[in-house]
Amino acid sequence: MFQSAAKTLSVSRWILLNVRHYCKKKTASTLRVSEALSATEFGEHVKVRGWVRSVRPQKANLFLHVNDGSSLQSLQVFADAQLNDSLLTFGSAVEVTGVLKKSPHHKQSVELEADKIHVVGKCNPLDFPFKIKERHGLEYIRQFPHLRCRTNAFSSLLRIRSEATAAIHSYFKENGFVHIHTPIITSNDCEGAGELFQVEPSWPKTEEQENFFSVPAFLTVSGQLHLEVMSGAFSRVYTFGPTFRAENSQSRRHLAEFYMVEAELSFTQSIEDLTQVMEDMFRSATEHVLAHCAEDVDLFHKHVTPGHRGTLDSMMKKKFPMITYSEAIDILNHSTQKFVFPTNWGCDLQTEHEKYLVKHCGNIPVFVTDYPYDLKPFYARDNQDRPRHTVRPVFFFE
Amino acid sequence: MFQSAAKTLSVSRWILLNVRHYCKKKTASTLRVSEALSATEFGEHVKVRGWVRSVRPQKANLFLHVNDGSSLQSLQVFADAQLNDSLLTFGSAVEVTGVLKKSPHHKQSVELEADKIHVVGKCNPLDFPFKIKERHGLEYIRQFPHLRCRTNAFSSLLRIRSEATAAIHSYFKENGFVHIHTPIITSNDCEGAGELFQVEPSWPKTEEQENFFSVPAFLTVSGQLHLEVMSGAFSRVYTFGPTFRAENSQSRRHLAEFYMVEAELSFTQSIEDLTQVMEDMFRSATEHVLAHCAEDVDLFHKHVTPGHRGTLDSMMKKKFPMITYSEAIDILNHSTQKFVFPTNWGCDLQTEHEKYLVKHCGNIPVFVTDYPYDLKPFYARDNQDRPRHTVRPVFFFE
Repeated sequence: MFQSAAKTLSVSRWILLNVRHYCKKKTASTLRVSEALSATEFGEHVKVRGWVRSVRPQKANLFLHVNDGSSLQSLQVFADAQLNDSLLTFGSAVEVTGVLKKSPHHKQSVELEADKIHVVGKCNPLDFPFKIKERHGLEYIRQFPHLRCRTNAFSSLLRIRSEATAAIHSYFKENGFVHIHTPIITSNDCEGAGELFQVEPSWPKTEEQENFFSVPAFLTVSGQLHLEVMSGAFSRVYTFGPTFRAENSQSRRHLAEFYMVEAELSFTQSIEDLTQVMEDMFRSATEHVLAHCAEDVDLFHKHVTPGHRGTLDSMMKKKFPMITYSEAIDILNHSTQKFVFPTNWGCDLQTEHEKYLVKHCGNIPVFVTDYPYDLKPFYARDNQDRPRHTVRPVFFFE
Repeated sequence: MFQSAAKTLSVSRWILLNVRHYCKKKTASTLRVSEALSATEFGEHVKVRGWVRSVRPQKANLFLHVNDGSSLQSLQVFADAQLNDSLLTFGSAVEVTGVLKKSPHHKQSVELEADKIHVVGKCNPLDFPFKIKERHGLEYIRQFPHLRCRTNAFSSLLRIRSEATAAIHSYFKENGFVHIHTPIITSNDCEGAGELFQVEPSWPKTEEQENFFSVPAFLTVSGQLHLEVMSGAFSRVYTFGPTFRAENSQSRRHLAEFYMVEAELSFTQSIEDLTQVMEDMFRSATEHVLAHCAEDVDLFHKHVTPGHRGTLDSMMKKKFPMITYSEAIDILNHSTQKFVFPTNWGCDLQTEHEKYLVKHCGNIPVFVTDYPYDLKPFYARDNQDRPRHTVRPVFFFE
């Protein structure tokens, strides 16, 4: 009886194994390249889809690199030379089926031994503006807005942006902030924060309707006033959306459209209640990006801003300093650097001043508080310190 | 020796306990109302800040309800009548310090026995537009956009919106989609999806510059074309941002500004690859909101859409059906309902038709596929089924 049970077991095991084998053959699971690259179990029959980044046909073998945008690194595909195809070119879209193996090369830990390579979208390498193994300058890439996201620089940048956005939302969520979508089209210009874009329908105005929204409407320059109202109900609110300036300047610091994080807190008791949130948000988002986009960040530290990683690492170890506007003016006036803009008490700080202050404090973000009364909006708290006359934000407990 | 060690231990324990007690008294930890309400350990000395929702002075005691927007439910505060203050009115902002206790009332599990109540912002109940214990209609509330977020209806709505937004982002992140911020100001009108808003600086045009962006610029009606480009690099991308229509209609279905989720997938093999993502996203966001905003959702199911909860629960148990446009037309033409708009083959489906189809399929979202060729953009895949002539999305593997 025992023997017969054992036999039954082994038969059912045989059936099971064969069913499993059959299933594997029938439905190879589809993996993203990033999943394949981090695989720790090998021998599985899988399918990977992406774009060819390199083709190296050899006498007996064929090597491909396939990238699907899920990571900077591509997956090396290894196949019999018979699987080569004239359509298998740089830029073509492929579906590769095969077995994941531990790679013998030190540059990668995993490779895919293909038994089928299907070209699902061809690409004429003569027409394709990017050439294999060539590094293209940003000015060149810029001509191809519909293809530039396939370059390492742009795909890394966009993956980092996506992760950084998620990290900022996570920080606020974990700290009890309610996410408010403040309006994009608005009739207020906040604190006169900048030049406005006006919004009107593209179709001609009718005589009885001067403005579509009955008043002139603009694109938001800040959600601050809406958030202040909301903070009076939720205590902690934030917004993170597109913001607009119609400034007629072509510089790195002037964008017509950009994304801005704004938060409002009720029941604050000191300026540190605010700066702590700003510092914590910066830290948690930076830590998240460094941990989750390590390869992408390395690419920029290697090719775009060499040496910046050291600055960043030391920044993450220190608390951000806080100085008053008057201290900042003193620091600027004691410097040996020649500034283009004046540094008299009462002048607004310019980019060159801000950069100097950051360097002076050890390449770390610096909070500057207690600005001159005349530079800030009417509702800032008067510090009652004439003749200098400075202001701070308004706090509940005074 | 053992005894002496025991004594030393007990002395150090005594010191520790006293230090802890001293620390507790010195810095009562600040809790959000939602945290206080879900406390399971009592006796702690805490601080809570929020707005007064009710004041009930009795001979010996004072009862308050304090809400800080972190939850629909307010925290009951119980104090000696001597702590009452004429400034303690409905709408005033307070900081309450005291001890968290298990509540003897069945309506709440926790209450705060206050030893200090500090009014940090007063509120004249005669000027405040909302009256205590009165239910105000939406039309009335609408007159006070700066205060309406303090009502239960609006605060619940905005908490749900915040959670739903986070849930949608989570779904895409967990499924390997890259979040792309598609441009808001754009020169393309996508597929002619709707009437456009035009964008120009609010300052007068100069003679040499006809348009600020050198071409006419509009507010986005869809990020689809930008996403399609991005999907050719990342395989899976999505956007979730503000979208605009300059339609001159005042109805629930026509908003000048609204938020839209759009996703693009590469390497799809069938229409089910797309509908599955839509269905999964809807399900995961709905589950998240039902789990994380249970009280807020209940408020709406109780007062705004009675009976809807049952529909929703049964919807969550069933797979969403998929029918072709031709089947939809058959269903409509076999119905006894009189429609305002025609239901001939070739006519676009109107709201009344969509509503009927949803009801017909058991109050559940329905996918309608294979629309007439003439109703869809030029690049949809021709099903080659003349004379009817319908289309499907384009797939990679055909």
